[in-house]
Amino acid sequence: VPRSDAHQGENVAARDERLCWLTSFTGSAGFCAALLDRAGVFIDGRYRVQVVREIAADHFSAVHWPEVSLADWLREALAAGGTIGFDPWLHTAKEIEKLREDLAGSAIEMRATDNLVDRIWEDQPPPPIGKIVAYPLEHAGQSSVDKRAVLAEGLRAAKQVAAVITLPDSIAWLLNVRGSDVVRVPVPHGFLILRDDASARLFVDPDKVGGLAGHLGGDLALDEPGAFLPALAALGSVVRVDKATAPLKISEILSAAGVKIDWGQDPCILPKARKNDVEIAGTVAAHLRDAAAMVECLAWLDEEAPKGALSEIDVVRRLEGFRRATNALLDISFETICGAGPNAAIVHYRVDEASNRAIKPGELLLIDSGGQYIDGTTDITRTVAVGAVGGDERAAFTRVLQGMIAISRVRWPKGLAGRDLDALARQALWAAGQDYDHGTGHGVGTYLSVHEGPQGISRRSDVALEPGMILSNEPGYYRPGSFGIRTENLLVVRKAAQIDGADARDMLSFQTLTFVPVDRRLIDVGMLNADERAWINAYHSVVHDKIAPRVCEAARQWLALAVAPI
Amino acid sequence: VPRSDAHQGENVAARDERLCWLTSFTGSAGFCAALLDRAGVFIDGRYRVQVVREIAADHFSAVHWPEVSLADWLREALAAGGTIGFDPWLHTAKEIEKLREDLAGSAIEMRATDNLVDRIWEDQPPPPIGKIVAYPLEHAGQSSVDKRAVLAEGLRAAKQVAAVITLPDSIAWLLNVRGSDVVRVPVPHGFLILRDDASARLFVDPDKVGGLAGHLGGDLALDEPGAFLPALAALGSVVRVDKATAPLKISEILSAAGVKIDWGQDPCILPKARKNDVEIAGTVAAHLRDAAAMVECLAWLDEEAPKGALSEIDVVRRLEGFRRATNALLDISFETICGAGPNAAIVHYRVDEASNRAIKPGELLLIDSGGQYIDGTTDITRTVAVGAVGGDERAAFTRVLQGMIAISRVRWPKGLAGRDLDALARQALWAAGQDYDHGTGHGVGTYLSVHEGPQGISRRSDVALEPGMILSNEPGYYRPGSFGIRTENLLVVRKAAQIDGADARDMLSFQTLTFVPVDRRLIDVGMLNADERAWINAYHSVVHDKIAPRVCEAARQWLALAVAPI
Repeated sequence: VPRSDAHQGENVAARDERLCWLTSFTGSAGFCAALLDRAGVFIDGRYRVQVVREIAADHFSAVHWPEVSLADWLREALAAGGTIGFDPWLHTAKEIEKLREDLAGSAIEMRATDNLVDRIWEDQPPPPIGKIVAYPLEHAGQSSVDKRAVLAEGLRAAKQVAAVITLPDSIAWLLNVRGSDVVRVPVPHGFLILRDDASARLFVDPDKVGGLAGHLGGDLALDEPGAFLPALAALGSVVRVDKATAPLKISEILSAAGVKIDWGQDPCILPKARKNDVEIAGTVAAHLRDAAAMVECLAWLDEEAPKGALSEIDVVRRLEGFRRATNALLDISFETICGAGPNAAIVHYRVDEASNRAIKPGELLLIDSGGQYIDGTTDITRTVAVGAVGGDERAAFTRVLQGMIAISRVRWPKGLAGRDLDALARQALWAAGQDYDHGTGHGVGTYLSVHEGPQGISRRSDVALEPGMILSNEPGYYRPGSFGIRTENLLVVRKAAQIDGADARDMLSFQTLTFVPVDRRLIDVGMLNADERAWINAYHSVVHDKIAPRVCEAARQWLALAVAPI
Repeated sequence: VPRSDAHQGENVAARDERLCWLTSFTGSAGFCAALLDRAGVFIDGRYRVQVVREIAADHFSAVHWPEVSLADWLREALAAGGTIGFDPWLHTAKEIEKLREDLAGSAIEMRATDNLVDRIWEDQPPPPIGKIVAYPLEHAGQSSVDKRAVLAEGLRAAKQVAAVITLPDSIAWLLNVRGSDVVRVPVPHGFLILRDDASARLFVDPDKVGGLAGHLGGDLALDEPGAFLPALAALGSVVRVDKATAPLKISEILSAAGVKIDWGQDPCILPKARKNDVEIAGTVAAHLRDAAAMVECLAWLDEEAPKGALSEIDVVRRLEGFRRATNALLDISFETICGAGPNAAIVHYRVDEASNRAIKPGELLLIDSGGQYIDGTTDITRTVAVGAVGGDERAAFTRVLQGMIAISRVRWPKGLAGRDLDALARQALWAAGQDYDHGTGHGVGTYLSVHEGPQGISRRSDVALEPGMILSNEPGYYRPGSFGIRTENLLVVRKAAQIDGADARDMLSFQTLTFVPVDRRLIDVGMLNADERAWINAYHSVVHDKIAPRVCEAARQWLALAVAPI
């Protein structure tokens, strides 16, 4: 029983909360293997504590994944062998292939079945029927017809008659629509078949579509979800399917119908990641709007926090209030992370009534949040001092900042991946024997998912960075039980500006999108070199110029002090 | 017709110089495809100029590889199809598999045959019969019997009855011997079968072995080369063969005999790369000896070069003379690179009578050289100013030095590969729009090959760095037609020292092995930050302490000035 739905998103609809319904575990990642005599809930390092609080110990046991693999756990639990049922809509072909390889030589068999949870979940909610709305050309920058024409050319070149698209943000991007089937990510659940003649069929509940037909264009047919499988079976050969994202069910249906499959990446993924000029301009506008809300919030926080009466939840609510006050917020882009003191050391901390903590002077407060706006998606982390904080905190904050600056400033030859830059973000921490156990950056969508592939900055990011890709730049440092630090700006990849004395090489660089002060009280200026100091002063100067006109007088006064040169 | 022999080494014996015999091309990498009506000599970027000078244009044409692949060239030249013969001793299974994949769908067939060059090369030299000598335990640090026992345990764990070893440096390392079949690299040509009971059979010409039997130990059998193929055929299943290094012939023989093959890396490669404490101590001693010779040479050069009468060849000869004067030099470890002015911009430049250039004031001189000593292999590059040089040269030299220092100083969490560190060496150059088109570092052997895998520092180096691995650290900068810069030290990976405030993480760092001054006249001090300046001053102070007692009075005086703080 995985946490995922048929679309492999981070957020799932109520109907798809099978893992939570079965086990009571509410985390955003994990799965359960339920046997006749035992059930394991597999969770990663983020959820070790939470899972124990949530599951019933007499029925479920927590399994530390990936240290213990599903295959190893099954081999031990089913030494004599057995059959494991799974829903082929909820697992990708790659996932099941890997599991079958891992189980090779055992007497354990994986068998596709209808969903065994759905059979017994009596009051299971219906599938979501969130409205699908047009995403206008003034924000998308390229018509759906144009996008389909380009992708169709790729299909013809690869001698593929069609591609099957199952990722909601791919569908949203390709059709220039947005949806409302899940929270935080404005995408529609559905399936799409794109033909090599640039025509497409979208399979969704007709109630979701309303008056969209005109927007979608004549070569896009709308169909009931029930028509999807027969349509697959009727496709000729060869069809492109993404092994890493499409439900296994799709390749099973195609194979059973004699359709030849070419495994290949969802063709929307790369062009969606390379934002066009209109999308970048929109994202810039969204970031200025969002930065003003952040600055209002930080000014308020500096006024109120030292009084000692604020809690983490107070800050989360107030911050969302400032974002809503822009009159442009469509949703927050993910659940706000707001951790004070030791809570900030829990990397994926989400405050709730039980964990909520008073914000005490002498502590650091980490706030990681973002907004969904019609023209772009934001994601920003700032760590601020409440009163006077210790030297260890300031030294670590400064090292994290040095890493953030190194990534902001780097210019690199075209062709490199995020992996090739990751060390720059960590170098200062490494020199002090410190590091952080998460990637430095993830891709970000345009009024789409705040976590978007394929690019990233981490040791697992092998995809070449290309102009137009948006990434986060968020080094951190976490001392468990004590404090946590993260500083995050978003960046967009650009062709590097010409400079004197440069080689004749294509080089790329980042343009910063986020304009919010970094807490200068936490910077140990003596640790910075001249270039780093110049960078932060120049950044703060631009922050002031761009944001001061956008905030109230009190915040403007706060901002003037917050950006004073160091 | 490849340049390689059956052992895939960088240097080949006279008998194996088939490519040169056929085409007159003398470069160290390349291959020829000879058809009935045309013949292509495939060479990479290093040899574009040289190849044209050497091959006869009426019979051969130069092909720019890898821009033009062999498969693409063959498809065009043999549009109607045809059969290409190749010697299965000179190509690995991986190489031929790849070529066959690339030719899929064409009517071109690859057919193994006896060597077609050997058939017509009437005065082909005989195979080398260089003596094999014992490499004593005091330098090897671990007995061959112990090494074989450890590897045999690995074979048993993998359920493999034997491994076939075809790399000469693997054989030299495993048996604690050295050979003399090729120049520059003290290895014996031969083949070895290691069994899972730790016994081994070495197949070499008996003339090469002399009185070694006692040193080699009772469980090592010596055999004629002719016994190798029958011995392969008699092996039971499963046998480990390295697809990337073993001649295709070996897997063909095994398969024909019904022996099952497990493709896997030559089991010597990783343990050989992780030098033990005795090997590291030997390498340190070799580097101090070699550094003294370098310092003598640099002192002499500073005295003589400004007079304007020296050529590149003069410097090469004199440097080798200083190394020979140590009375410990067994060979140079590769052909010395010594390039003045624009010649230094040719990355793999080897001076000859035709290219030899006078060393002129106002130019940079790049010297990349190394020695083979009984206790270690050295490799060092220094770029020195002859008279006053320009600002571009000094700025680029300083950036290269910043990269060299960044790698020297880095501390990183265990598990990372050289690829994850490479950006640190390039960051300063990138910021100026500059870069270099070679890796930052390669592995180095211990009185073995100066280029040794599997580790490296480059965007192609995915092997985790481990304690004991020796690497070069050699950023550079090349302005074609104008000047070239490279600064190279060797390093060994160590567990990082404990420091206050560090996380509980296993971290690694480099220990520098090379102790020769960096030309301080070329450093633009204002470009360095405080840490970099401190590093170079501390390095020079250690250089002085270690090397001053080892050189003549004149060199000592030169050294005192060369290491003055900046």
